[in-house]
Amino acid sequence: MKNVGIIGASGYTGGELLRILINHPDADVKVATSRENAGEPVFRIHPQLRKLTELEFVEPDVEKIVQTCEFVFLGLPHGSSAPVAKRLLEGGVRVIDLSADFRLKNKDDYPKWYGWEHPCPELLQVAVFGLPEFHREEIKGAKLVANPGCIATASILSLAPAVKTGAVEKNRIVADAKIGSSGAGTSVSMSSHHPEHSNLVRAYKPVMHRHTAEVEQELSLKANGEKVIIAMTAHAVDMVRGIMVTGHSFLTREVKSPELWKIYRELYQKEPFVRIVKEQKGLHLLPDPKNVVGSNFCDVGFEIDPHASRLVTFGAIDNLLKGAAGQAVQNFNLMIGVDERTAIGFAGVRPI
Amino acid sequence: MKNVGIIGASGYTGGELLRILINHPDADVKVATSRENAGEPVFRIHPQLRKLTELEFVEPDVEKIVQTCEFVFLGLPHGSSAPVAKRLLEGGVRVIDLSADFRLKNKDDYPKWYGWEHPCPELLQVAVFGLPEFHREEIKGAKLVANPGCIATASILSLAPAVKTGAVEKNRIVADAKIGSSGAGTSVSMSSHHPEHSNLVRAYKPVMHRHTAEVEQELSLKANGEKVIIAMTAHAVDMVRGIMVTGHSFLTREVKSPELWKIYRELYQKEPFVRIVKEQKGLHLLPDPKNVVGSNFCDVGFEIDPHASRLVTFGAIDNLLKGAAGQAVQNFNLMIGVDERTAIGFAGVRPI
Amino acid sequence: MKNVGIIGASGYTGGELLRILINHPDADVKVATSRENAGEPVFRIHPQLRKLTELEFVEPDVEKIVQTCEFVFLGLPHGSSAPVAKRLLEGGVRVIDLSADFRLKNKDDYPKWYGWEHPCPELLQVAVFGLPEFHREEIKGAKLVANPGCIATASILSLAPAVKTGAVEKNRIVADAKIGSSGAGTSVSMSSHHPEHSNLVRAYKPVMHRHTAEVEQELSLKANGEKVIIAMTAHAVDMVRGIMVTGHSFLTREVKSPELWKIYRELYQKEPFVRIVKEQKGLHLLPDPKNVVGSNFCDVGFEIDPHASRLVTFGAIDNLLKGAAGQAVQNFNLMIGVDERTAIGFAGVRPI
Amino acid sequence: MKNVGIIGASGYTGGELLRILINHPDADVKVATSRENAGEPVFRIHPQLRKLTELEFVEPDVEKIVQTCEFVFLGLPHGSSAPVAKRLLEGGVRVIDLSADFRLKNKDDYPKWYGWEHPCPELLQVAVFGLPEFHREEIKGAKLVANPGCIATASILSLAPAVKTGAVEKNRIVADAKIGSSGAGTSVSMSSHHPEHSNLVRAYKPVMHRHTAEVEQELSLKANGEKVIIAMTAHAVDMVRGIMVTGHSFLTREVKSPELWKIYRELYQKEPFVRIVKEQKGLHLLPDPKNVVGSNFCDVGFEIDPHASRLVTFGAIDNLLKGAAGQAVQNFNLMIGVDERTAIGFAGVRPI
Repeated sequence: MKNVGIIGASGYTGGELLRILINHPDADVKVATSRENAGEPVFRIHPQLRKLTELEFVEPDVEKIVQTCEFVFLGLPHGSSAPVAKRLLEGGVRVIDLSADFRLKNKDDYPKWYGWEHPCPELLQVAVFGLPEFHREEIKGAKLVANPGCIATASILSLAPAVKTGAVEKNRIVADAKIGSSGAGTSVSMSSHHPEHSNLVRAYKPVMHRHTAEVEQELSLKANGEKVIIAMTAHAVDMVRGIMVTGHSFLTREVKSPELWKIYRELYQKEPFVRIVKEQKGLHLLPDPKNVVGSNFCDVGFEIDPHASRLVTFGAIDNLLKGAAGQAVQNFNLMIGVDERTAIGFAGVRPI
Repeated sequence: MKNVGIIGASGYTGGELLRILINHPDADVKVATSRENAGEPVFRIHPQLRKLTELEFVEPDVEKIVQTCEFVFLGLPHGSSAPVAKRLLEGGVRVIDLSADFRLKNKDDYPKWYGWEHPCPELLQVAVFGLPEFHREEIKGAKLVANPGCIATASILSLAPAVKTGAVEKNRIVADAKIGSSGAGTSVSMSSHHPEHSNLVRAYKPVMHRHTAEVEQELSLKANGEKVIIAMTAHAVDMVRGIMVTGHSFLTREVKSPELWKIYRELYQKEPFVRIVKEQKGLHLLPDPKNVVGSNFCDVGFEIDPHASRLVTFGAIDNLLKGAAGQAVQNFNLMIGVDERTAIGFAGVRPI
Repeated sequence: MKNVGIIGASGYTGGELLRILINHPDADVKVATSRENAGEPVFRIHPQLRKLTELEFVEPDVEKIVQTCEFVFLGLPHGSSAPVAKRLLEGGVRVIDLSADFRLKNKDDYPKWYGWEHPCPELLQVAVFGLPEFHREEIKGAKLVANPGCIATASILSLAPAVKTGAVEKNRIVADAKIGSSGAGTSVSMSSHHPEHSNLVRAYKPVMHRHTAEVEQELSLKANGEKVIIAMTAHAVDMVRGIMVTGHSFLTREVKSPELWKIYRELYQKEPFVRIVKEQKGLHLLPDPKNVVGSNFCDVGFEIDPHASRLVTFGAIDNLLKGAAGQAVQNFNLMIGVDERTAIGFAGVRPI
Repeated sequence: MKNVGIIGASGYTGGELLRILINHPDADVKVATSRENAGEPVFRIHPQLRKLTELEFVEPDVEKIVQTCEFVFLGLPHGSSAPVAKRLLEGGVRVIDLSADFRLKNKDDYPKWYGWEHPCPELLQVAVFGLPEFHREEIKGAKLVANPGCIATASILSLAPAVKTGAVEKNRIVADAKIGSSGAGTSVSMSSHHPEHSNLVRAYKPVMHRHTAEVEQELSLKANGEKVIIAMTAHAVDMVRGIMVTGHSFLTREVKSPELWKIYRELYQKEPFVRIVKEQKGLHLLPDPKNVVGSNFCDVGFEIDPHASRLVTFGAIDNLLKGAAGQAVQNFNLMIGVDERTAIGFAGVRPI
């Protein structure tokens, strides 16, 4: 049983971390912080947890947390996380950071994509990119895990097979993302106002989405050192949870279905949280966020377009689970050496 | 470990039964029937279960089921269920029937509310109304449990405190229900066509809703033998899951908040799946289906209207869980003598 | 051609007023004010108006407006409207006030329902309640029209026939309202945050809704002086536009369908914007906001419940049109003596 | 005043044609056919039209229509339309065909994309592709107008500027489409069942969408004879109306914003129904179907991606209006020589 803390526990990711960890047989949530809600019972903010936990939010106090917790899930905004993580690491706490502060290996990517200089670049090499499917062994021993971004997770897992073929143009891979409103968190604004966020398809980040950097970093690792360029466009659609990344890659030679199936199976057949979805009949032919919502699964699939010499790939996740809290616990499970599925093996809730 | 069967497992309730029971430590799902999908893996119809079960649908064959299963969850349409239940009972199988066929004690209520004569009225007294909060002891020993209707569950649990006050006009209790589209199941029709079922508030059953009968039956038991009359109107709203029943009862004398709190606590404080929601601050002041979706909870609450001498009550459930599959498993847990929360103690998924 | 001004034109009601009035053959929009957006083209805030108007928002300047406009649509918050209206009236401007400031005849109702003393109670008798169906002749000559509330409009029009029967218990009429998110306007808050306002049924005003006062005022006029008591509960549901008010009235004697049809026809057959919806077949049997969205219609209908001696009534409107901007223009048309349907005779947009 | 008929008037496009044409000053709807609903008043199927028209559906009888109507809007399924159009043309009726039967100039494209041989290929050259922005003069004199497909309209109008630059790779233009449920019409199926069509992003046509053919045909005309290849993927999202086509084109040389603005202005500045949306501030920066729903506008815009040498384009329409009925009336207006905006100049309904 590990003592764990959640710093920044009142947002949607915090709610999911709490939902999972209060049922985790190897975790004991000692601290859940929320500056704004300190003193309140957790269930007043996360009403789904009423009658399930007596936890109360407390003020964030890193020194105290160091004295109590062996593991901390860090849910602070990008840029605020790094110094806190540093202090926690100094105190011997193992950290799973849900911000972007440690995802990029190259410190120069921070000014480029995030607009600020990294305050502790020496930690970038200490941090492990927390995508278990591709960094499982490193994660097990990691002191600092950088939990991937939500669109990034769906993009990397769904596009890796395309890159692995060696048969797609690596400098022009489109990642057309569609995402639900919970991805923007709990900060209210006109853009998240219900009348403005219903029945919409808004290209809220048409180019230069920050997750591009981590997707390129990880996919380049699958490309024999060649640099992969991702052309990402992110759209808000009318749903609360879920991400679909449609990948459009152009083929440099003919590629047939069996070759792709082989690559998909090699990459994902044994993965507990990646499912290959490519059916010939029924309604559920390809990945759809609808079928993973409420679960830690990433569904991936593909279609070959002979007309345009294109490989279309699909990746669907629940942005708050495989895209945030679920993956964080998956990393935690690896770090403490238990079955990766512990406390997150539940199915999605369908239909929703 | 009990061998269980699910007859009629391809609908939404079937999907939820499967989701729950494949993780139930005391249940082994031996049979899941679907005439239409026999031979197909369960996950082709319920894609959320991919990689979680290798079960396949089989043709319904009651004789075979009698030889294999000790418990059967019966998910057949109203009217088709009774003869199958009868045969199962003769074979010593304990049955949890999710149809309406055994919910009403008075056989004359069937022609009145359902338009048909009951084919085996002798079983009506054998059957136990499967609302654990009010029939827990009977359920434990029951051979045949009649799982309550979804709107009925929310109505009974939310209105019982009003009736218990002895201070409301019992012959004019309004139950104004709002329900999501999954309540109508998987049969497609123009009324469930997405363009027709979006952005709507459709009074699809303005009067004489069939669940009225079971609500009156159960609430009359709480009214010292007095007959309770329910004025129910059911509306379809634009959500997939969830039911909200707003109850409007008129007071015969002044009733204050502490008196009601006392009744609510007496009825529900110890109930594992009923939560009293009545907050003074925050966003989540009263029950809302949004906060129970994905869980087996029924949230109940109230407000006193001094202006109109009215007691307003609220009951919110997930129609597929506490309104169907979740409650069925709650009954199953009681019948086999394990913790009532086994396999259904999960929190709702929020936000959704 | 009348010179008109819109004070407070950047909200949703302002957008609808602009959409209608820029096409009105007898109106020339001289001024559209918005403190926050002064200097901006109107289409930057109301993007549906791009290429349809070159209007720009200006700072509100009442003195200037008095010099320019013969008519003003006043879209200020409750409580701020009264002094501005007073000044406009002194300047000879005819005012259609969309706030609640002049809806109630009895000045004591303001402290009771709105929590403040009315600053110019002498105007309450000058003001005409702007529901054309019941005050058409007074509106024609009015200097100050108090445009009814949105839930109030649907409640009054749908419940008036019930009251007119003389056969319902007038002191216990339930108005159970379901409303879309645009009803709360453009102020962002956690309660309107898309993840919080999706898939919900939230009783945001379970008792003591302010519109109760005007509904009672108007329905009492239909009750031969008897005081009508309305038991209102307002719920937010997941749609942007639309209100459904389900009325539950209890009968003091048997009432049959032909008697009701007669009353409905007498009240509404000649009304251009009220439609009686009560079909025997098809999908659209009763009023549904879905069928009026985008139009100025109020659909009304009823069902008799023999079981509970109840009359169920339904009223559906688009809250921004018949519940606000559309009705305001209907009043304007009466005031200037043109066909009541001018510029607002369009059908709803369906399906939406 | 022209006598017009609508063949196939009970679907969603039929409803919009009726809504528009009953208010058209130069059209007199003589016939609205519906096999299934013959004899029914139109408002029973299209409830938004109650109190606005007394029209009734009639059985389709082409011979009678030839005797009555000068113009026919043909709303039959793909493949059924051609022979009826042929007969109408023989009778001197001018036809606006909303099916795909006359959109493609090359008869060999029908077997390839639609799977059938064209029954009257001689008419393919008679037909004019009904996109006024690119074929205005031909439409004016046309006897047979082939109204473009909905995704095609948004794709062609939004991608034409990219092609016109001469600076994009023409053989790999991605058209990633997101579409509402009304695009699939009124046929019910499991895929349109509300619980299945909510909160989804379903790639229902990942490759080889039929509209590809007409998009390529039209864009190739803008490419100096060079063949344009479109890589289309169509997704269903949770909205009723609206299409967004996100175009991803790869640049062959650096292209800057002013060059693009110039092309956009040349193509669209004078177009009554195309709006260039590219703002620097506010919420509405780029096209979004939300802002055109209920109108005949197509909003187009772009963004340059320096990182991936990509031009991202956006096109948003209401699939039932600019994507079907609205554009059909725009064509009709051209054919009869009236202002192109007659009866379709209304703004969208926002927010919805």
